[in-house]
Amino acid sequence: MQGPVQSSSTSVIRSSLIEPDGGVLIDLVVPESEREAKSVEAESLPKVWLTKIDVEWLHVISEGWASPLKGFMREDEYLQSLHFNSLRLKDGSFVNMSIPIVLAIDDETKERIGSSTDVGLVRPDGELIAILRSIQIYKHNKEERIARTWGTTAPGLPYAEEVITPAGNWLIGGDLEVLKPIKYNDGLDHYRLSPKQLRQEFDRHKADAVFAFQLRNPVHNGHALLMNDTRKRLLEMGFKNPILLLHPLGGFTKADDVPLDVRMEQHSKVLEDGVLDPETTIVAIFPSPMHYAGPTEVQWHAKARINAGANFYIVGRDPAGMGHPTEKRDLYDPDHGKKVLSMAPGLEKLNILPFRVAAYDTVAKKMAFFDPSRAKEFLFISGTKMRTYARTGENPPEGFMCPGGWKVLVKYYESLQAEELTQQPAAVSS
Amino acid sequence: MQGPVQSSSTSVIRSSLIEPDGGVLIDLVVPESEREAKSVEAESLPKVWLTKIDVEWLHVISEGWASPLKGFMREDEYLQSLHFNSLRLKDGSFVNMSIPIVLAIDDETKERIGSSTDVGLVRPDGELIAILRSIQIYKHNKEERIARTWGTTAPGLPYAEEVITPAGNWLIGGDLEVLKPIKYNDGLDHYRLSPKQLRQEFDRHKADAVFAFQLRNPVHNGHALLMNDTRKRLLEMGFKNPILLLHPLGGFTKADDVPLDVRMEQHSKVLEDGVLDPETTIVAIFPSPMHYAGPTEVQWHAKARINAGANFYIVGRDPAGMGHPTEKRDLYDPDHGKKVLSMAPGLEKLNILPFRVAAYDTVAKKMAFFDPSRAKEFLFISGTKMRTYARTGENPPEGFMCPGGWKVLVKYYESLQAEELTQQPAAVSS
Repeated sequence: MQGPVQSSSTSVIRSSLIEPDGGVLIDLVVPESEREAKSVEAESLPKVWLTKIDVEWLHVISEGWASPLKGFMREDEYLQSLHFNSLRLKDGSFVNMSIPIVLAIDDETKERIGSSTDVGLVRPDGELIAILRSIQIYKHNKEERIARTWGTTAPGLPYAEEVITPAGNWLIGGDLEVLKPIKYNDGLDHYRLSPKQLRQEFDRHKADAVFAFQLRNPVHNGHALLMNDTRKRLLEMGFKNPILLLHPLGGFTKADDVPLDVRMEQHSKVLEDGVLDPETTIVAIFPSPMHYAGPTEVQWHAKARINAGANFYIVGRDPAGMGHPTEKRDLYDPDHGKKVLSMAPGLEKLNILPFRVAAYDTVAKKMAFFDPSRAKEFLFISGTKMRTYARTGENPPEGFMCPGGWKVLVKYYESLQAEELTQQPAAVSS
Repeated sequence: MQGPVQSSSTSVIRSSLIEPDGGVLIDLVVPESEREAKSVEAESLPKVWLTKIDVEWLHVISEGWASPLKGFMREDEYLQSLHFNSLRLKDGSFVNMSIPIVLAIDDETKERIGSSTDVGLVRPDGELIAILRSIQIYKHNKEERIARTWGTTAPGLPYAEEVITPAGNWLIGGDLEVLKPIKYNDGLDHYRLSPKQLRQEFDRHKADAVFAFQLRNPVHNGHALLMNDTRKRLLEMGFKNPILLLHPLGGFTKADDVPLDVRMEQHSKVLEDGVLDPETTIVAIFPSPMHYAGPTEVQWHAKARINAGANFYIVGRDPAGMGHPTEKRDLYDPDHGKKVLSMAPGLEKLNILPFRVAAYDTVAKKMAFFDPSRAKEFLFISGTKMRTYARTGENPPEGFMCPGGWKVLVKYYESLQAEELTQQPAAVSS
């Protein structure tokens, strides 16, 4: 097991940011000069219609988050990902790749593609956005994919149920050429910095260490304590300018998670209220969909941040975990995430920073690192508990979250309830 | 993908056999001089009672088939095996380890062990056979283990149902010291050559290439054709003395597989009848239990043979596969086994020899390599079909199997039927 301290010196010596996986940051957006010709060509090809989530993955691949992946996985990449959570490069070394990034098609689409070697990819709104070249079509064994990715096939896994089960029985891999940068036009695109743009930001800030914090929940003062403490530790290690990448996940999340726009507003308030230092924090959206696949997925979360220039990764209890869909227990052992992450092939160059558990100190009336010697004076407030507070209008203990951030959540849950009230009569009358 | 031709030259240059994984062949049987003292010590320790299959795994570990593993897996090895099918060595390199080799205990045993750091391991017949040192006890998440090993959790997987599901909720790892070599006293122990003994045999034969053939079925002429053809190919590559390791699996198999003693008798006849050359063939038993875990298990089968000195491994259609337990299809894509094997971390030094499909040529009246241009003249005889022939007393087509070998099978199925007949009335009367 490698700890942050041993390897930090190596990072200090290196003047530039951590290398992307495979040595080169992949960028699959075609140069503007070729766009017109490629678009005309794409029109002539058999079409594959993408779902919203397919587009999110296409976005992820196109900007190099999954470097060195150059497109949706062909079978050899898929099998390596599924069995080994890593891809072997030509020089014999491994990069991490724990989640299959694949595109499913149905029988009819496969038939329509016939013997064509290239296809055009179409967004749900009908816009032709990419070409997939030198395609390979292979079987989509959903049961095996789910079992090997999640370590269970129990019904109720959000990604499996909403994305995999309804998908086609074939996977289509190939090299991607994206006709123009992916935009969502939801008012949040300015937060969607590509790995290349993030690296430019870090260089502009003269960062000599970048520590990434992945999240899909509102930021409370426990998170903030941890991020601020990490910065302190990095300064103590001798880094001069550690930069925090506060990096909420922006793709598919399960229905009861707080939506992206609300979270982004909440994160803004946290910076406005000075809980995190705007000078040393970069807030951006990680465009990946969420699998909730625990130890398997946390590797993907970490690996993608290497490509964005982060050389430190904060990992907490039960990362990317959730409750077991059919049993009354966590789906994953809460410690497995950080253990698996610390041993994962291809992540050797990343410094894993294990979370110290923060909880509400009822004496000091603030979030603090848990002290087992006075365990009774601490209150653990889970994400579920936090959402219950906000939903019922009850205030969490003072010092749990900055007031500005809390207001955003309360407003969101009030709007949800208002929506439910207006929807109920409609549902009855229809 | 590496083919046999590219890397064979390296093997020719090396004068000795392929190195075991980790560089040193593990041997965990204590020297005779220490046996007495260790036995006395073992008596004083808390006891863990082993099942028949636990003993098979203990046998496997003790002789170094799983080198560099030195005992039942601790959690860090278990997690690496489950997630990455490989173990990272201290020098950063990987060895393959696709199957968790673990020992399960129940709550009561865990309680009884208490804070002891070492335990004694007891065979089902009551004999104390080993010490497990510096133990670690951790949770046995059976659902996750099954899902990640088999890629399904469907009911009806033989190993899962018979071994994992009834096992305890804890796993106990540690360093193994085996008090004396494991014997079965079933008249077949002389076939149970350890990796060390096999290496001595290969050296005695002055082998410059060793090609292993894993099987759990009787040898028919199609298998023989393949093995003889492989030897021819190796001679053509420039090897002077390629030796075949005919290596039937000797541990747990599912109920409808042909039992080990019958298979060993059948294999003897195949050599007696001259179908395989006794001068260049070594028949030995591979003591591992069978998982029927397809692409995941075939890596274990190959890796263990590296430790026994084999540098070529023959892989066929659907290795270690079986029918899906609840659906009418193969559990695994028949091509995934060889694909996964060719890409598996830690198996780079092994030359994978993909099977050419042999079938019964109804014109030439013998087993021959399938010729798709005259597909209709070939008859595919599956293991199930072969067993049906033998059970019903019907003769397979002439040239399918040597007569001596076939007689062994017929005799076995006749004895089975006789047994069923005598058992039926007993069952009714009880």
